[in-house]
Amino acid sequence: MNLDRYRNIVRETERKYINVNPIQRGGVLTPEARKALLEFGDGYSVCDFCEGLLHEIEKPPIRQFHEDLAEFLGMDVVRITAGARYAKEAVMSALCEEGDVVVADSLAHYTTFVAAEKAGATVREVPNTGHPEYKVKVDEYARVIDEVEDERGDPPALALLTHVDSEYGNLADAEKFVKICRKKGVPALLNCAYTMGRMDLSNLSPKPDFMVGSGHKGMAACAPCGVLAMREEWEEEVLRGSSLRGDVSGREWPHKEVEMLGCTVMGAPIVTMMASFPHVVERVKRWKEEVRKTRWFVKEMERIEGVRQLGERPKRHDLVKFETPGFHEVAEDHPRRGYFLYEELKKRGVIGIQPGQTETIKASVYGLTDEQVEHVVRAFHEIAEEYGLEVS
Amino acid sequence: MNLDRYRNIVRETERKYINVNPIQRGGVLTPEARKALLEFGDGYSVCDFCEGLLHEIEKPPIRQFHEDLAEFLGMDVVRITAGARYAKEAVMSALCEEGDVVVADSLAHYTTFVAAEKAGATVREVPNTGHPEYKVKVDEYARVIDEVEDERGDPPALALLTHVDSEYGNLADAEKFVKICRKKGVPALLNCAYTMGRMDLSNLSPKPDFMVGSGHKGMAACAPCGVLAMREEWEEEVLRGSSLRGDVSGREWPHKEVEMLGCTVMGAPIVTMMASFPHVVERVKRWKEEVRKTRWFVKEMERIEGVRQLGERPKRHDLVKFETPGFHEVAEDHPRRGYFLYEELKKRGVIGIQPGQTETIKASVYGLTDEQVEHVVRAFHEIAEEYGLEVS
Repeated sequence: MNLDRYRNIVRETERKYINVNPIQRGGVLTPEARKALLEFGDGYSVCDFCEGLLHEIEKPPIRQFHEDLAEFLGMDVVRITAGARYAKEAVMSALCEEGDVVVADSLAHYTTFVAAEKAGATVREVPNTGHPEYKVKVDEYARVIDEVEDERGDPPALALLTHVDSEYGNLADAEKFVKICRKKGVPALLNCAYTMGRMDLSNLSPKPDFMVGSGHKGMAACAPCGVLAMREEWEEEVLRGSSLRGDVSGREWPHKEVEMLGCTVMGAPIVTMMASFPHVVERVKRWKEEVRKTRWFVKEMERIEGVRQLGERPKRHDLVKFETPGFHEVAEDHPRRGYFLYEELKKRGVIGIQPGQTETIKASVYGLTDEQVEHVVRAFHEIAEEYGLEVS
Repeated sequence: MNLDRYRNIVRETERKYINVNPIQRGGVLTPEARKALLEFGDGYSVCDFCEGLLHEIEKPPIRQFHEDLAEFLGMDVVRITAGARYAKEAVMSALCEEGDVVVADSLAHYTTFVAAEKAGATVREVPNTGHPEYKVKVDEYARVIDEVEDERGDPPALALLTHVDSEYGNLADAEKFVKICRKKGVPALLNCAYTMGRMDLSNLSPKPDFMVGSGHKGMAACAPCGVLAMREEWEEEVLRGSSLRGDVSGREWPHKEVEMLGCTVMGAPIVTMMASFPHVVERVKRWKEEVRKTRWFVKEMERIEGVRQLGERPKRHDLVKFETPGFHEVAEDHPRRGYFLYEELKKRGVIGIQPGQTETIKASVYGLTDEQVEHVVRAFHEIAEEYGLEVS
């Protein structure tokens, strides 16, 4: 076993390059989080003054954070999970029986499917408008819910909408979704992995039953952590305490929440999420500015021959997918094939697009300065021109 | 919302005090891990060069780490989970049907119960010898397994042994346990939360089917992370890929492992576990030294009037529980009641015993220098003498 490979694990990317990977932009730590990380890096660091339940720890202020985070989201109760996927799985595990159906949008992240599968459920999708906008037809939740109920005699156990999807960055109509679900009597889960920590979610009306988010994707926190927020009426079911009792020992743990497996996220992730929280509360107020920046980025990218932004127009989120047929043609004749674009960008100090990929690319300029976005655009323009693609 | 409380989250405990909390000693980061933490603190930091599966990432060397960790444990396949509890839950979720039985020792951690409950199973306990040694009667796994089979017609879905329990720090006979399970045809899971990263587990014979450990409890890593190791024959069942397919989108994810919810631990925890790995591989070789130190600690503590070490004698693990009736009597008349002991220790630079608790106390001197252990002992002796307890 060659242990030397573990002796100096470094990451040069964030120091040397501008990273436009959409899954990474919202999880860049704040300086405050970096400091907290050094304080609370050790395993069970936050448990110094624990009296039995992680979410009730007063120092550091974890109990208070749960309250403030619920207020920030306009929800009643919050738990920190090991990621958005664990939050979805907890809800599905609590609400679904074997063979139940979850209705979800056809842009839903793969973790919606694996979480449902783990909980013994299947998924029925709600269509989208297809190329080029791929907008989820939120109205059709009503039809799909009815179909499931007609076929099975029971309504779906849960309906889920991906607030902003990870493929096109479309912002779906959450309020319409919740209205439909409420009318049909189906619990509504809004997957906010790409919106929580970017946008102000506190004014949704009506509120979803569950709101799920990601700390490492959207709240400037270490992985792995996520948020499960819910309306009060679900607390008893989804956060039920353990009911097993040791037949020999007589032990029981009624305060340990089964779907959370007792305590969840102990150290670095929850502390960085807390340390970044004041910044996150502030940054959601500047969301319009991010959208403006994204639209400028799209406009400049579309000056390149053949480049077209996919998904809804105009953009209402920073995650952008482009068709890039010009770059794809270049790749076909390039000795480095599809890798040429990644490598040319890297030479110019830009990383984060999928290596090898030129047919379409995904990028985000979230949190970058205007100067950095200009640098990214200049890099793309230069590469286009170098390879004979027109920049209008 | 008063956000100021999140602006300077500090932890003085590790800088100013010697911490003897048993859940924390094995999770103290190495200097190498602290450095890696700064490199990889950002959310999805390890995903810079991901091609779709976390455990196959080459840079940082996550794929290789999975191989090396399996070798270190003497097992075939390894996955990193969000903690030992998630590893147990993954196995139970894969192996248990609703109403199934898991047979576990009567010292099993509460997370064994909540994981079973989440998976729809119940737990039947194997007795221990009771006060004062509380040794699990490993022989009796055979009887309990037979009883479950007689009652239900089916054998238990899983048997679990806590290698070292969190209450008394007893080291259970893992090999005898596995032999019984193999003979009975029941899969055997060894919960190594308190042994993995402390002791060399590579030579167990026969091997358990599953071995579960904790990164933040035993491998000098950030929370939350754990290890699920298994014999090859279980890979197909426990790490099965997703089989759902989007009925509208046609999407499917056969390579995403359902029980892992796809990818698991992305950033700080896995990177710190890797960065600490060379140190961990080294430190398990010095385990005898830790046991020697613990036995000296016990001997010195038992010089205090009334103090008696609970659990097996002599100690074979650093987690120690003491009966401390003398301190308990002092507490009854002390204005600070049970908190006096915690506060007197803190005055002397020692923390980590449960505040308010004087009837029994738990402590560990794992990883402390001899001088530090002497300091801890001196603190206890001084407090004893100050309150009129004899130190022989």
